[in-house]
Amino acid sequence: MYLPEHFVETDPAEVASLITAFPLAAIVAQTEQGLVANHIPVMAQGETALIGHIALNNDMHRLLEDGAPVLVIFRGQDAYVSPNLYPTKPENHRHVPTWNYQVVHVAGRISFQHDEKSKRAIVGRLTRDHEARMNGDAAWRMADAPRDYMDAMLAAIVAFRIEITGIAAKAKLSQNRAAVDHAGVVDSVAARGLDNMAARMRRDSAD
Amino acid sequence: MYLPEHFVETDPAEVASLITAFPLAAIVAQTEQGLVANHIPVMAQGETALIGHIALNNDMHRLLEDGAPVLVIFRGQDAYVSPNLYPTKPENHRHVPTWNYQVVHVAGRISFQHDEKSKRAIVGRLTRDHEARMNGDAAWRMADAPRDYMDAMLAAIVAFRIEITGIAAKAKLSQNRAAVDHAGVVDSVAARGLDNMAARMRRDSAD
Repeated sequence: MYLPEHFVETDPAEVASLITAFPLAAIVAQTEQGLVANHIPVMAQGETALIGHIALNNDMHRLLEDGAPVLVIFRGQDAYVSPNLYPTKPENHRHVPTWNYQVVHVAGRISFQHDEKSKRAIVGRLTRDHEARMNGDAAWRMADAPRDYMDAMLAAIVAFRIEITGIAAKAKLSQNRAAVDHAGVVDSVAARGLDNMAARMRRDSAD
Repeated sequence: MYLPEHFVETDPAEVASLITAFPLAAIVAQTEQGLVANHIPVMAQGETALIGHIALNNDMHRLLEDGAPVLVIFRGQDAYVSPNLYPTKPENHRHVPTWNYQVVHVAGRISFQHDEKSKRAIVGRLTRDHEARMNGDAAWRMADAPRDYMDAMLAAIVAFRIEITGIAAKAKLSQNRAAVDHAGVVDSVAARGLDNMAARMRRDSAD
């Protein structure tokens, strides 16, 4: 992607945090059918891999050989930025509209696992993680479902693992603006309820 | 993408509305450098094309020949769906977690325009559209900026046009659930502030 130096997200903790906060990734690949993309909840396994699962009915695991290159796009919040948000606007009017956003592009090589152990492991990790976040002590557990039902569900999916070959993260967050204009944008995105973006921009201000 | 029949978004008005409401698209292409993606604000031109502009410094216009295939991914809101959201859960426990989301995948062929008329036209359309939405009568206008500044800005961009060759839209919105469980999910996404998704799901309920 086009990634000017001042928009590079260089903080590994912020990259990891975006993957955790916005787990529904677009997994993109070039196939014999052309470009194919699927939106799939993905999670990191350490710093070297991403894991998840897809439906057995999803052709992705038939179109891609083990080791095929994929691009995994995680996307944070985004916001239109009007020149009206810059307090310096009346001084010189040398502003144009733009768009702020945060994205993480992970390049990697995908492989698929059809064995029940791998599938049960990834389903278990995803479930524990997302249930803990949403429901805390009231988390739904796989053990709540009847065994025959869970077995049928597991038979209908394929696990995957993506070995990471590269990460490019972009935080286009008005870093190239005067402090007062940056603050004007922070106020606006906060007012729009874009809390994640506002928090990241506030950390920039504090640096 | 994997697109079961019950999740196909068949309403052209809803597809158009998603493109308008979530204009920051991921434009993906296979290049000699591998898979490349850029997030760019895009708008529809009628029903047959998408238009926008990128930075002259963005290699995309050098990596892709006119007519190269691209995949343009528009993405609406998304929500983790816990089995706890289904009122029927205690009856049989035959539920697993899932994820709801809306996406529009537009396949097309891209071409780039370097002439000032094309660039001024797309910048003008994008500006009028987004300023009207955000600022109404207080809209910022290109004419507010000094002419030499706007000329320099226009010299630093490249316009593009994508002729649409195919559209696949997916609305994964609990349509395959019992009415009472569907309603439970609507309540939850509304409570999370996902107004766009809640509104679409309520229209499904009314059908």
